[in-house]
Amino acid sequence: MPPVARMLTRSGTAGAPERSDASRNRELLLRTARRLVDELGVAALSMDVLAAEAGLGKGTVFRRFGSRAGLFTALLDEYERDFQAACLSGPAPLGPGADPVDRLIAFGHERLRFTAERGHLLREANARPTTVNPASGFSRLHLRVLLQALDAGGDAEVLAYQLHAALEVPLHFHLDGHLDGVAPLTAERFAAGWTDLVLRVARR
Amino acid sequence: MPPVARMLTRSGTAGAPERSDASRNRELLLRTARRLVDELGVAALSMDVLAAEAGLGKGTVFRRFGSRAGLFTALLDEYERDFQAACLSGPAPLGPGADPVDRLIAFGHERLRFTAERGHLLREANARPTTVNPASGFSRLHLRVLLQALDAGGDAEVLAYQLHAALEVPLHFHLDGHLDGVAPLTAERFAAGWTDLVLRVARR
Repeated sequence: MPPVARMLTRSGTAGAPERSDASRNRELLLRTARRLVDELGVAALSMDVLAAEAGLGKGTVFRRFGSRAGLFTALLDEYERDFQAACLSGPAPLGPGADPVDRLIAFGHERLRFTAERGHLLREANARPTTVNPASGFSRLHLRVLLQALDAGGDAEVLAYQLHAALEVPLHFHLDGHLDGVAPLTAERFAAGWTDLVLRVARR
Repeated sequence: MPPVARMLTRSGTAGAPERSDASRNRELLLRTARRLVDELGVAALSMDVLAAEAGLGKGTVFRRFGSRAGLFTALLDEYERDFQAACLSGPAPLGPGADPVDRLIAFGHERLRFTAERGHLLREANARPTTVNPASGFSRLHLRVLLQALDAGGDAEVLAYQLHAALEVPLHFHLDGHLDGVAPLTAERFAAGWTDLVLRVARR
């Protein structure tokens, strides 16, 4: 039986019980932060603005997240959780039920979109794209499970590392702030390149 | 005509003329530093030890390299230059003359070996594996030229980014200091995985 990919996020707070008012505050703050990011962009989101918009004290915001970077890490965790849920139990082809090749293609496209949309958050959270952060662990594990289901031979674990690295290319550009200058490559070319790579790897 | 890969290194000092005694000192210091690294390891190499071993003043060492990290960057440039020369004009299959698939395989294996041997230097130089450093530029360009020679179709530039990222996986582990703990993957598995990936990408 292939290993089942578990939800893995950066802050790892899922298992820690919180007092119910603290938990409510956290939810309210994250919901408010998501709305502010959607409406005004990441740059406009400060601890002051968040406290005011949520109707809570600034001290509460700092107690919850420690710093602005901590807030962005928590936000990223939220998005990551949604993404992982969609992969594990959402509709096909991202979720279960489709051909593994189609699922691999869908996974990459969704991940590339995630990176494109959340790259600014990653930058603010000072998150580095590394092979050892928990979110990367989920991606690699998910890729490995799909590669094994594909029955394409080879070393599925190493292939998962290789494919995962290929998906993180645009993330590096985001973090280095060179997306437009150095790489004249569009999101469309990366997405098409992912489909092509999966088909080659799957020998289809 | 495909673009010709040029020598690209981090410090970019190749074109800057130096006064001849300064140039001689630099050569002597780098030669001495390489010997010390080979004999004693990176950890033992300090600015003091280097000055004493080279028979020069400590001030000269600092003037040449600025800092210990600067010294390691210069050392890396030396190794990178050797590596690039071997790819561009060394014996086949790494150098010209062999089938593009064999050259791609040889390139990856040599690059993985380079990373394994120089990972500790990269760590000391605080160099991050990014898609935008000049050494990465050389690798991507070289990969693209070989992919185009291969005539395997697809978007050779995007494929080059993807393959390049796959080769940098062990570098991330080195920089995060997790090579042994988190990844139970050996250098041999990565090397075999590279051969497999190239054959799939080349549809052979």
